[in-house]
Amino acid sequence: MFSHLCGKNSLLSSIPNFTKRFICKSRPMANSRFDYVRNFEQNDSILPNCWIVVRIDGKAFHKFTQKHDFNKPNDDNGLNLMSYAAVQVLKEFNEIVLAFGQSDEYSFIFHKTADVYSRRASKIVTCVNSLFTSSYVFHWGKFFEEKQLLYPPSFDARIVLYPSDENLRDYLSWRQADTHINNLYNTVFWKLVLEGGRTNTEAQKDLSGTYSSDKNEILFSRFGINYNNLPQMYRKGTILLRKNVEVPKLNGYQTQLIVPFFTDLIQDKFWIEHPEILTKDKSQNYELDDEQLNHPIMQKQFDIVHKRKNNNK
Amino acid sequence: MFSHLCGKNSLLSSIPNFTKRFICKSRPMANSRFDYVRNFEQNDSILPNCWIVVRIDGKAFHKFTQKHDFNKPNDDNGLNLMSYAAVQVLKEFNEIVLAFGQSDEYSFIFHKTADVYSRRASKIVTCVNSLFTSSYVFHWGKFFEEKQLLYPPSFDARIVLYPSDENLRDYLSWRQADTHINNLYNTVFWKLVLEGGRTNTEAQKDLSGTYSSDKNEILFSRFGINYNNLPQMYRKGTILLRKNVEVPKLNGYQTQLIVPFFTDLIQDKFWIEHPEILTKDKSQNYELDDEQLNHPIMQKQFDIVHKRKNNNK
Amino acid sequence: MFSHLCGKNSLLSSIPNFTKRFICKSRPMANSRFDYVRNFEQNDSILPNCWIVVRIDGKAFHKFTQKHDFNKPNDDNGLNLMSYAAVQVLKEFNEIVLAFGQSDEYSFIFHKTADVYSRRASKIVTCVNSLFTSSYVFHWGKFFEEKQLLYPPSFDARIVLYPSDENLRDYLSWRQADTHINNLYNTVFWKLVLEGGRTNTEAQKDLSGTYSSDKNEILFSRFGINYNNLPQMYRKGTILLRKNVEVPKLNGYQTQLIVPFFTDLIQDKFWIEHPEILTKDKSQNYELDDEQLNHPIMQKQFDIVHKRKNNNK
Amino acid sequence: MFSHLCGKNSLLSSIPNFTKRFICKSRPMANSRFDYVRNFEQNDSILPNCWIVVRIDGKAFHKFTQKHDFNKPNDDNGLNLMSYAAVQVLKEFNEIVLAFGQSDEYSFIFHKTADVYSRRASKIVTCVNSLFTSSYVFHWGKFFEEKQLLYPPSFDARIVLYPSDENLRDYLSWRQADTHINNLYNTVFWKLVLEGGRTNTEAQKDLSGTYSSDKNEILFSRFGINYNNLPQMYRKGTILLRKNVEVPKLNGYQTQLIVPFFTDLIQDKFWIEHPEILTKDKSQNYELDDEQLNHPIMQKQFDIVHKRKNNNK
Repeated sequence: MFSHLCGKNSLLSSIPNFTKRFICKSRPMANSRFDYVRNFEQNDSILPNCWIVVRIDGKAFHKFTQKHDFNKPNDDNGLNLMSYAAVQVLKEFNEIVLAFGQSDEYSFIFHKTADVYSRRASKIVTCVNSLFTSSYVFHWGKFFEEKQLLYPPSFDARIVLYPSDENLRDYLSWRQADTHINNLYNTVFWKLVLEGGRTNTEAQKDLSGTYSSDKNEILFSRFGINYNNLPQMYRKGTILLRKNVEVPKLNGYQTQLIVPFFTDLIQDKFWIEHPEILTKDKSQNYELDDEQLNHPIMQKQFDIVHKRKNNNK
Repeated sequence: MFSHLCGKNSLLSSIPNFTKRFICKSRPMANSRFDYVRNFEQNDSILPNCWIVVRIDGKAFHKFTQKHDFNKPNDDNGLNLMSYAAVQVLKEFNEIVLAFGQSDEYSFIFHKTADVYSRRASKIVTCVNSLFTSSYVFHWGKFFEEKQLLYPPSFDARIVLYPSDENLRDYLSWRQADTHINNLYNTVFWKLVLEGGRTNTEAQKDLSGTYSSDKNEILFSRFGINYNNLPQMYRKGTILLRKNVEVPKLNGYQTQLIVPFFTDLIQDKFWIEHPEILTKDKSQNYELDDEQLNHPIMQKQFDIVHKRKNNNK
Repeated sequence: MFSHLCGKNSLLSSIPNFTKRFICKSRPMANSRFDYVRNFEQNDSILPNCWIVVRIDGKAFHKFTQKHDFNKPNDDNGLNLMSYAAVQVLKEFNEIVLAFGQSDEYSFIFHKTADVYSRRASKIVTCVNSLFTSSYVFHWGKFFEEKQLLYPPSFDARIVLYPSDENLRDYLSWRQADTHINNLYNTVFWKLVLEGGRTNTEAQKDLSGTYSSDKNEILFSRFGINYNNLPQMYRKGTILLRKNVEVPKLNGYQTQLIVPFFTDLIQDKFWIEHPEILTKDKSQNYELDDEQLNHPIMQKQFDIVHKRKNNNK
Repeated sequence: MFSHLCGKNSLLSSIPNFTKRFICKSRPMANSRFDYVRNFEQNDSILPNCWIVVRIDGKAFHKFTQKHDFNKPNDDNGLNLMSYAAVQVLKEFNEIVLAFGQSDEYSFIFHKTADVYSRRASKIVTCVNSLFTSSYVFHWGKFFEEKQLLYPPSFDARIVLYPSDENLRDYLSWRQADTHINNLYNTVFWKLVLEGGRTNTEAQKDLSGTYSSDKNEILFSRFGINYNNLPQMYRKGTILLRKNVEVPKLNGYQTQLIVPFFTDLIQDKFWIEHPEILTKDKSQNYELDDEQLNHPIMQKQFDIVHKRKNNNK
């Protein structure tokens, strides 16, 4: 059912065809009359020494979250499933040094030195997106035990290059600032709708032209909410990093896992604490805090380590 | 949880940012310091008036089919699940005029006049691929009732343009010729391994340098098999077309469904019988033959129509 | 002074570097530490089977024509020099089947089957543009005997692909329609300024919002000019084609030369009369009319043939 | 003769067409039937924040230098004409911070922040190349007073991006190392041919497989030449920088001119002495040495300043 030897999945697949022709003598050549159509495929390898960002984005997730009755403005299971799908991507692509997620989007950062798929743009963007999608559907039941997935969701993806470390940091700052802006808006919006008795249209109108300070004020004065006390995951998004961590209940056993952080990445502090992102040095040893220890995407990774350890016995 | 008004999913999303800025006044502008990073996204809209081919391809499906114990050389359920995932893609993208599948690959042909996503290459290729992937995982259980999906599979995808109708036909002929070549090889290979007592390596060696005629001869003389009597689906692949068909048990009710064909598309006959592919005229009325009527991907489409009809009562 | 053997101008230059390395053993390898920078060059070969249009366009020619005191609205010597520079391009690139010029722009049409420079976009566009520029400066004195070239003019160029014959014809129709629109405007504008006593700004204002019929009327009623009697070269632009023609005063000697046509190319007639443009068949025998026989760019080509013939004696 | 108001050369030319349509109301719209062909032009703007290198390269200059009887291996007038053409390019494009030339090639470095032509690749590469070509032909007579230009030479050009300062320096080091390698080879080659009585083929054979040390040895032992005493311009190429310099015989008058340097740029020294290249700070004041003062491309720039000063009187 699948090609052998010199097939599309073989080690030779990155070698130009005209060269392969000489190396790969055993392949049947009967196609020759139509073979010319291969030459219409265009080379899309991307500039070396640039940071590669793949950003995936839910398609029609407004409708998707309604149909699946997600909590508004934030659904913990929905957000954690997104992050767990992202974890699978980081496990597959070891040149990803960081991922950042919020709402129905996730950004994956390949180190500027990455050589994945010879830096072919469409190969990278489709493989990351497909694995993310597949994982989202596959792991749905682990996050929504009671809730059936009604139809297959999908995601688009794009690839963007950033030449300098500063550009990359600004990209991530842009996404994190966006997280804050959207979350503040959505928090007030849904308070107005769900508790304030406003229709969607009215709430939208109420908020039109307001500043952050206005929205904070509405939240505080009308609903008794201090925005800054809301969970960091909602306000800052989820950052995923590779770290060497101790797996609980395994006598101090350490291994590399994908750890979620809910913290500011706009200031320098984050980058000083996690220098391996930019330098691509080895993963650091890291001591998980309680929030991380108990986070579902860590728990599920621990489970897998435990199973593997038990199987090896 | 998802953007409103002028957000990424809105009608405005295809308008250049500098213009949107004026139109979309209500969007919070607090990001301005980092907003410049948007300008690193590059325009990848593709040449008008070319046929757009999106070909998806299973990643590491050699291993995937082994782990999931697929029948060799062809697994009917595996092939039909691929086709059913493809059906979902055709239902979503109405500018796809034909799809062709074999083994772990599927090609989707957007008509040369298609304007999907303003012909942005990465948007098209990632959305098609994501929906295909998602559907493959989502519908797994409908085709493998007894068999658990063990891990999330993924697919890569590429986009290729063909300027002329002749180029497009040659592309499809290339894939169908490839289907034959691979299937003949695999059929003999697995006969040698499963019934002929040869190891994989020995079988590979046996076949090295052989011509089609040699392989046909081995099949016939050693295993009593006439290759040309094997199912067309294995030898020709699966062609999906949109047709107006009568849904059984609904008093002659007709609707547009996605119909599988297992036939030669290299000769002119196919193109004469289905002129709407190239002309993009309305779907033809078509009378299903018995093989089509009973094919799982038709049955499942009939079921959906029945359900919808029943709900409407 | 210039590379040898395996240098940049050699036959090997289109072979990927990693392959060349093995073939081209004699090249000094001392560069290795910096050699990696070659990998930043990106492949820009263009889609096969599309018509390739290279359009060059004078930079700041408004100023250039003023400084060089060109006749307004049309300067015959200026237009003919453009065409003679274009002739040099057609003589160099035998896959160009047609060129069309007007004002300070020229379009060169490479046949869709062209394989020039392996269809590398930047190579094609820069070589055509450079040869055109070079020829414009080099031949200046042949068209402006009394007038010194004051500073080096320059041209930009772009490359555009057209998948179908119809698209190509529409491209050329677009340029010819543009020729008419601009020429009509400029003819009236300069009449108003040079003979009507209006300033540039006044003339511009006079014409703002007028239709073609209005402009024709102004020309006729105020200046006694029937626009349709103006030279075709001004109203239709210059079309260059390869034809086998008889060179005068050489006893019927025929050779392939580049012939100017001043005729409509929007209607079918032109394409029926010159079928070799689309089919890329051999150049037709063609009998020059008097306008062509006496046109400077033919005269100069005749001179070259005569010289060559005389040298061969 | 040239477009007005909203024409191709106007300020509006970088605005997308659909927007321009609204702004630019006065343009005649009669083309509409064919106007769609504009949409086949593809956006090729290049990634922000990367160094832009445009490298031009003589076409068939092996033949060109033979026909024009250039001195071998280096022709001072030929090299200086190249540099003087490059000077014109630097005068036109003020975002070029450095140019490097050797043999028949010249590289122009636009600062990574450059916004020339909105960073449209084909516009940049064709304009630079066209102006270079035009200047080469136009100024020929200033460098070859006795020698007629026999036919129009042409150049190809390519554009390459470098994300980091280090990449850029390595690019320039690569070209300078290449200068040395080629010049050493050519110096020995032509000594063998012109003074050693060897044919081209014999000389080529003699040098095949030799190392730098071998070539130095041949030069010294057979021709009494110490390679390191040859002019730096031959061994290191020509670097052009913008500097504020004092123009001789003008009472200390300073102005910005383009100054040639013949020096190593691989080591740090060069970059420390000319920090404005990377930082794009204002041009430094620079005191010309005797070689620079007397160099033809400085002399010609001085002449222009003198003329301008005299005209202003």
